[in-house]
Amino acid sequence: MLSSHAAALSDYLAGCRSLVREEIERLVPRRGKHRLLYELMLEYPLREAKGMRPALCIAVCRGLGGRLHDVIPTAAVLELYHNAFLVHDDVEDGSRLRRGKPTLHQVQGIPVAINVGDGMLALALQPLLDNTERIGLGRALHALEIVARMCRESVEGQAVELEWIRSGEWALSDRDYLGMVLKKTGWYTFIAPVLLGAAVAGARSRSVTMLRRFATLLGVAFQIQDDLLNLEVTGAAYGKEIAGDLEEGKRTLIVLHLLRTLGRDEAARARAALALPREQKHPEELRWIAQRIREVGSDRYARAMADRYAGKARAALERVRDDLPPSPHREFIEALVEFTVRRAS
Amino acid sequence: MLSSHAAALSDYLAGCRSLVREEIERLVPRRGKHRLLYELMLEYPLREAKGMRPALCIAVCRGLGGRLHDVIPTAAVLELYHNAFLVHDDVEDGSRLRRGKPTLHQVQGIPVAINVGDGMLALALQPLLDNTERIGLGRALHALEIVARMCRESVEGQAVELEWIRSGEWALSDRDYLGMVLKKTGWYTFIAPVLLGAAVAGARSRSVTMLRRFATLLGVAFQIQDDLLNLEVTGAAYGKEIAGDLEEGKRTLIVLHLLRTLGRDEAARARAALALPREQKHPEELRWIAQRIREVGSDRYARAMADRYAGKARAALERVRDDLPPSPHREFIEALVEFTVRRAS
Repeated sequence: MLSSHAAALSDYLAGCRSLVREEIERLVPRRGKHRLLYELMLEYPLREAKGMRPALCIAVCRGLGGRLHDVIPTAAVLELYHNAFLVHDDVEDGSRLRRGKPTLHQVQGIPVAINVGDGMLALALQPLLDNTERIGLGRALHALEIVARMCRESVEGQAVELEWIRSGEWALSDRDYLGMVLKKTGWYTFIAPVLLGAAVAGARSRSVTMLRRFATLLGVAFQIQDDLLNLEVTGAAYGKEIAGDLEEGKRTLIVLHLLRTLGRDEAARARAALALPREQKHPEELRWIAQRIREVGSDRYARAMADRYAGKARAALERVRDDLPPSPHREFIEALVEFTVRRAS
Repeated sequence: MLSSHAAALSDYLAGCRSLVREEIERLVPRRGKHRLLYELMLEYPLREAKGMRPALCIAVCRGLGGRLHDVIPTAAVLELYHNAFLVHDDVEDGSRLRRGKPTLHQVQGIPVAINVGDGMLALALQPLLDNTERIGLGRALHALEIVARMCRESVEGQAVELEWIRSGEWALSDRDYLGMVLKKTGWYTFIAPVLLGAAVAGARSRSVTMLRRFATLLGVAFQIQDDLLNLEVTGAAYGKEIAGDLEEGKRTLIVLHLLRTLGRDEAARARAALALPREQKHPEELRWIAQRIREVGSDRYARAMADRYAGKARAALERVRDDLPPSPHREFIEALVEFTVRRAS
């Protein structure tokens, strides 16, 4: 069953990816006097990536009876926002690699990277306004409201995380972590794609409520899996630095569990190692932390939590049977749940 | 006449400023869990400033017969966008002072400043959506289109300037400069405020065309005056560094004129001095450039150009008599033209 899920997933993703890529290339005018700027806006979107967010948006819309043609521009806009956030986040987090290549600010400098991100946010607005002619005023305005909310949530989540890092805050509960994750990545990775797909399809509010619950739960499972992968895999396979989260001093469920499980002295040692500015961090201390994570079982703790949230998400999805009957679109959404907690990249 | 103009101007600005400030404080939720983030979003908007952009938007709307109540949120949104651009531009330009105080990234660091700017852009969207209930769907969507265009133009203008600085480009004509200025500051300082005021009022297209011409011309005069002031006044009065433009290596009409007027050796010396990274610049070389600007008359050249553009703006405004009859609002707009080329800050 897992392998049929995996095949359905990769086919569906590939189909959506080419449609969305075409649409993005239509939206970003790679010609004329400002060619250089627009080419940089396409840098991240054209790098190899799964394109999970637009695919989810398309699947929800079509699964609920909406038309592919109606949802493509909105799905492309989602991908554009996602990539704009990545450009700015990479500067803010001091990340070096993105999708296996150097981050934009590493190559172009911080000033250009900030401006390119702003440009992507600016470009993303017009297709949402053009939605009025495609799907009608009511649905188009509703989609704009969702996007406005998505941007606010992402910025709030990023603010929480930056503040934790800046103030050296480590006394955090799982609940603090989950709240940050919901805002920083959950909203724009799962909640907004699902809500936008439903808005374009004009879904009934009962289904929307349940789909939103599904997206919220799946977002948590996804981020925990992301944290686990960041810790495990090598740079080549994952496209980011090895254990970049430890280098960046990120508060992950794994590290929070470790800190409250270690004895006082070891916890102090780990906090001190994580608190150093990135370029002053000692690799051997980070390796020690990674080793203690495995010994203490913080990774297994996180894995169990991810599985629990994925299970809850599955249950929520089960409750949207009437409006989202069996179809290739529903099959993709179901496969996405399995992928979220089983993926290796 | 100048003094009555000046009084009309400062009264009108003061009246608009308090209304806009109130509205901004309503839009930015300074409470709850994310209080810190929202307080930083208010940092620039609450610093002492003229508030010219929202006042122009309000004056155009009311002068054309629109209602104050209808235009306030849109005027506040303009001010919010303006301040978001300032936050990001200050990072991109490496500026140290803004309105007499340290720039946001100097105090909070670059990561927080980028995120705060993004947050302001995100917040600015909702009031434009709420416009649908205030001024109707057609006008609200039109206002959104203007804002989307404004953001694109600003980013393109900023990209042009960053590219000039990065590639060491100095072989630029006045026309190159004017094109960049129109996009980088003209659009969001004059064109968008005027178009938004007219959109909220539901102005006739003939008047809109002429007002847009007025705004385009005035924007050029304003930026040249800004460049002149940057060169002349001291940090205390102007709220920026002394000759910060020279430190930042900005291509201004003044410097471009100087470079093509100097002999080959002196021009090479000036270019070399301006090309150094900011922290390596030699103050005595910058002082030499400022001195040669006065000796060669590049400042007088720019002053004459600013006056010429202001004169053309005045003539364009004269042609919108029917829809914009004499009123305190028109009086303010006229006073703004005089202020633009006579102001000392």
